[in-house]
Amino acid sequence: MGRAKKLIIDTDPGIDDAMAIFLALKSPEVDVIGLTTIFGNVYTTLATRNALHLLEVAERQEIPVAEGSHVTLKKVTKLRIADFVHGADGLGNHNYPPPKGKPIDQSAASFLVEKANQFPGEVTVVALGPLTNIALAIQLDPEFPKKIGQIVILGGAFSVNGNVNPAAEANIFGDPEAADEVFTCGADILAVGINVTHQVVMTVADLEELSRSEGKCAKHVCHMANLYFSYHKEAYGMDGVYLHDPTAMLAAIDPTLVTYAEGVVRVQTSGIMRGLTIFANMRKRFSEITEWTNKPTVKVAVTVNAEETVKLLMARLSKP
Amino acid sequence: MGRAKKLIIDTDPGIDDAMAIFLALKSPEVDVIGLTTIFGNVYTTLATRNALHLLEVAERQEIPVAEGSHVTLKKVTKLRIADFVHGADGLGNHNYPPPKGKPIDQSAASFLVEKANQFPGEVTVVALGPLTNIALAIQLDPEFPKKIGQIVILGGAFSVNGNVNPAAEANIFGDPEAADEVFTCGADILAVGINVTHQVVMTVADLEELSRSEGKCAKHVCHMANLYFSYHKEAYGMDGVYLHDPTAMLAAIDPTLVTYAEGVVRVQTSGIMRGLTIFANMRKRFSEITEWTNKPTVKVAVTVNAEETVKLLMARLSKP
Repeated sequence: MGRAKKLIIDTDPGIDDAMAIFLALKSPEVDVIGLTTIFGNVYTTLATRNALHLLEVAERQEIPVAEGSHVTLKKVTKLRIADFVHGADGLGNHNYPPPKGKPIDQSAASFLVEKANQFPGEVTVVALGPLTNIALAIQLDPEFPKKIGQIVILGGAFSVNGNVNPAAEANIFGDPEAADEVFTCGADILAVGINVTHQVVMTVADLEELSRSEGKCAKHVCHMANLYFSYHKEAYGMDGVYLHDPTAMLAAIDPTLVTYAEGVVRVQTSGIMRGLTIFANMRKRFSEITEWTNKPTVKVAVTVNAEETVKLLMARLSKP
Repeated sequence: MGRAKKLIIDTDPGIDDAMAIFLALKSPEVDVIGLTTIFGNVYTTLATRNALHLLEVAERQEIPVAEGSHVTLKKVTKLRIADFVHGADGLGNHNYPPPKGKPIDQSAASFLVEKANQFPGEVTVVALGPLTNIALAIQLDPEFPKKIGQIVILGGAFSVNGNVNPAAEANIFGDPEAADEVFTCGADILAVGINVTHQVVMTVADLEELSRSEGKCAKHVCHMANLYFSYHKEAYGMDGVYLHDPTAMLAAIDPTLVTYAEGVVRVQTSGIMRGLTIFANMRKRFSEITEWTNKPTVKVAVTVNAEETVKLLMARLSKP
């Protein structure tokens, strides 16, 4: 086994963010060196509060939390917040007590750039929300794409309908301009879209099994999860929940759980399909120069070992 | 066997349009009552000339040809013409002699409206090019969608990359505003996209078999086909050609050859994904009202019996 991978989690907790964060903290393959926060499931202020809360639950308050952008790359402030999925507090409407910790005195973008410079090629960013902070890091330091190790993105709906509307997936829809900038920045990127995460479902039976475990993180996840389950019942008519963020996290922790295709991803930024992601492997020779031509390629997950992913998540969360 | 279906072919011939037109003329299930012409593979003027030429080859000069729009619905005149696929003359660069016939003194849109009124619910339109004429027919007579029998559209790239660029399929890209209007007009629509037609391939061996037939139409297709084959070799590296237009035509002639899903289709009209089609079955309950919400549904082909489609095309073209 090699050295643990240095990991920064860019996150908008969020119930499945909480699962993903706990999962990372309980995984020896990775060393979480920081959390950066972003709007999405909640506003950024609340994302920061929740990130600090989750680190307290996991007794890992030494991990720094850097607060991210409160607005999109184009400074839009009317954000789409998924409180109907995660609750007004983002963690299932339990109003957990305020955390004792505070965010560090550094923006998310600045923290990302600093760590990429401190450990060139060694830091993996797992981006679980809109990509504003990553785009700001690129603006802050144009060499960031070369210095960062890998960026694993939970986002996009590749060849399937979106979840905000038939075109767009929530994280990309949250800041399409930032997403297009990140996808074409030239970094080593692995995108895990809902075409993959919709294959990874935690059932009610899984949740019951988890609730019998002694793990503190498992118990906390079970306490938060009700609202997330009832949203899935309402929206999809299913007795289970999609494990979006944990799947992306596991793709960073154990890359053998997914397979991927390589190609160019662009994001639509206007019109009724704003936020749509289109992947092209560019094997067809188009007669014209296209908006995908000569852009850097990224990896896009196409299959996932769903059974193993759920099993690994449950096992890690159940650790004492 | 029931009465033959009255058919109008809206077409931009085009080598595969020629195959589709011959196919219809040789199929007892349908009665071709007119051809309307549109830009796409060629400019509209040439489409009209080619339509007349093909009717002469098939000795069916009694069928009226109504010339369609020379510009898009928004009056754009800088059109995308696929001469690199079909040749400068649209029929493989053979410069066939000018046809003796002339188009009727009526626009395509007006002809479509007249026939829909004359035979309410009985006319099928097979639309093999950009959808400008159909959209103009709807503008001319808002009741057209209710009076027309069915509109079978060769167009769209559903959950797959386009063929103009990674987002857009050529016919929809040719007039996205018209396409969005037609897809949401409330008519009985069956769309056959390249996700389906890319499964239907005529091989070099098929072409050789066809060339040994005594059918006049088969011989003419073989004479035209070289350029179409070399385009496919160049663009896709394949020894065969996609049977786009014949597949859509066969879906009208024998609906059992395809299966379809029902849902709402919208077309992106701006930005880098202009011309993209997104289908939604609307089974997911979205939290917001979307641009797909409460729009009329259409049928979108999802599978095709490719072997039978090729076989039927060959058999019909080979008829004396």
